[in-house]
Amino acid sequence: MLYVVGLGLSDEKDITVKGLEAVTSCERVYLEAYTSILMVDKEKLEHYYKKPVIVADREMVESDSDAILANAGKVNVAFLVVGDPYGATTHTDLVIRARELGIPVQVIHNASIMNAIGACGLQLYNFGQTISIVFFTDSWRPDSFYDRIKENRALGLHTLCLLDIKVKEQSIENMARNRKIYEPPRYMTVNQAVEQLLEIEENRQEKAYTPETLAIGCARIGTVTQHIVSGTLQQLVDCDFGGPLHSLVIVGTKMHFLEAEFVKEFAVDKAVFDETVKRDYKI
Amino acid sequence: MLYVVGLGLSDEKDITVKGLEAVTSCERVYLEAYTSILMVDKEKLEHYYKKPVIVADREMVESDSDAILANAGKVNVAFLVVGDPYGATTHTDLVIRARELGIPVQVIHNASIMNAIGACGLQLYNFGQTISIVFFTDSWRPDSFYDRIKENRALGLHTLCLLDIKVKEQSIENMARNRKIYEPPRYMTVNQAVEQLLEIEENRQEKAYTPETLAIGCARIGTVTQHIVSGTLQQLVDCDFGGPLHSLVIVGTKMHFLEAEFVKEFAVDKAVFDETVKRDYKI
Repeated sequence: MLYVVGLGLSDEKDITVKGLEAVTSCERVYLEAYTSILMVDKEKLEHYYKKPVIVADREMVESDSDAILANAGKVNVAFLVVGDPYGATTHTDLVIRARELGIPVQVIHNASIMNAIGACGLQLYNFGQTISIVFFTDSWRPDSFYDRIKENRALGLHTLCLLDIKVKEQSIENMARNRKIYEPPRYMTVNQAVEQLLEIEENRQEKAYTPETLAIGCARIGTVTQHIVSGTLQQLVDCDFGGPLHSLVIVGTKMHFLEAEFVKEFAVDKAVFDETVKRDYKI
Repeated sequence: MLYVVGLGLSDEKDITVKGLEAVTSCERVYLEAYTSILMVDKEKLEHYYKKPVIVADREMVESDSDAILANAGKVNVAFLVVGDPYGATTHTDLVIRARELGIPVQVIHNASIMNAIGACGLQLYNFGQTISIVFFTDSWRPDSFYDRIKENRALGLHTLCLLDIKVKEQSIENMARNRKIYEPPRYMTVNQAVEQLLEIEENRQEKAYTPETLAIGCARIGTVTQHIVSGTLQQLVDCDFGGPLHSLVIVGTKMHFLEAEFVKEFAVDKAVFDETVKRDYKI
């Protein structure tokens, strides 16, 4: 049996009881560690599960899934995923591959940022499509998600922006020389995301949003150090959100007054929040 | 402390380890039992937690939240929610009320249909706004969600349809006579939802969807009896999905071929599925 187990958002105790029982029954335990990160070390998981945990990087999951699935028709194998198992395409690939090999699969769900974002005070059914914002480089400044935000905002809907994570990245030089030396991990901050968004709007000038649009910066959702701040995009540029992971919500104009009431609690400046809502939102 | 604890989707073991530890520390444990249902009885939870569980109906949560919060500044109180705590507006009301009373609140997240729906093979970031379909009555046939589906489909996005639940409902006669006699619970099936959708399209004729539009019927997601069937709306009218809870996804035209590959596994008729995808989807 292949168990694909969601670990939730924070630490070793966010696994479900069912998930923990599954892991305990497994001969091999893999931890997917490149689409998201858990807030605790692998060693803590190993201590908690009382067994070794093999870190599965992108290369292993995408090119060598048969190694993960080896013998899984006879023994139990766990593939641990931060958040919920269906958060990233790669995991569905693994499930499809297991099916092809006739290996039974059980998925054990958990919270992910896709539903836990409700903690910011906005209702999940008022969100449009979710977007991912990637790190700009000098030569690569992709902005196709701008159109998605524009579509959502034209309907008055909120947009959840997932922020880039760079784990086990090689420098161009090391890649060219085929040296397996990796850069330190990087996690996009709310501030970086907002700066990139404002740069794109400055270039495109299609008013998908403006520096005065309300947004909510969220850090470490679902952990004890969770930090949520609402304000205009311009206000969020300078807010300190602390360590990873961060995400950002661009607030849609159809915000309900009950949502506004909740979100106001997180406002960097309640007076500016009220003014902005009064001016731009249909409440 | 008020703990608002998500129970996940299926049974008593879908609670997280952290959630179970919180419940164990509580003097009083309430179970919200009207926006969703767990697949096990209250008695099973009581046996598992080794303490009584008080069922909180809509009336109690909406009108008498201070009773739930009584003394929660001094002792621990748990409010259990099927799925994730932020799935329904009522729970955010309770959190706001606790804040007003100066009671510390800790939310313990879990899977909900809003993210577990990824099990149907579609990617969560390709979903537009979520809608709720309520039971039609002879005199009340609300269809405002039709416009939401139309908006999503104009953008090529998928639509998650949450289906109505009627728990502790009074008949009009019993309500008029103020008799606290309740009807048996009712849960909308995929079939009923599809019939209502087709009736609305028949009336509105705006082609938000047609009987040939692809959809995915989902029953008991996250449980061992999970059942998923994809097909045209017309095909789903007659499929048997078994017991509650059901939900429905209307597939957007921007479906990626990897999504189609996964969804095809659930097709009621793979040939019709392929034809429909070839004709209507941008793959």
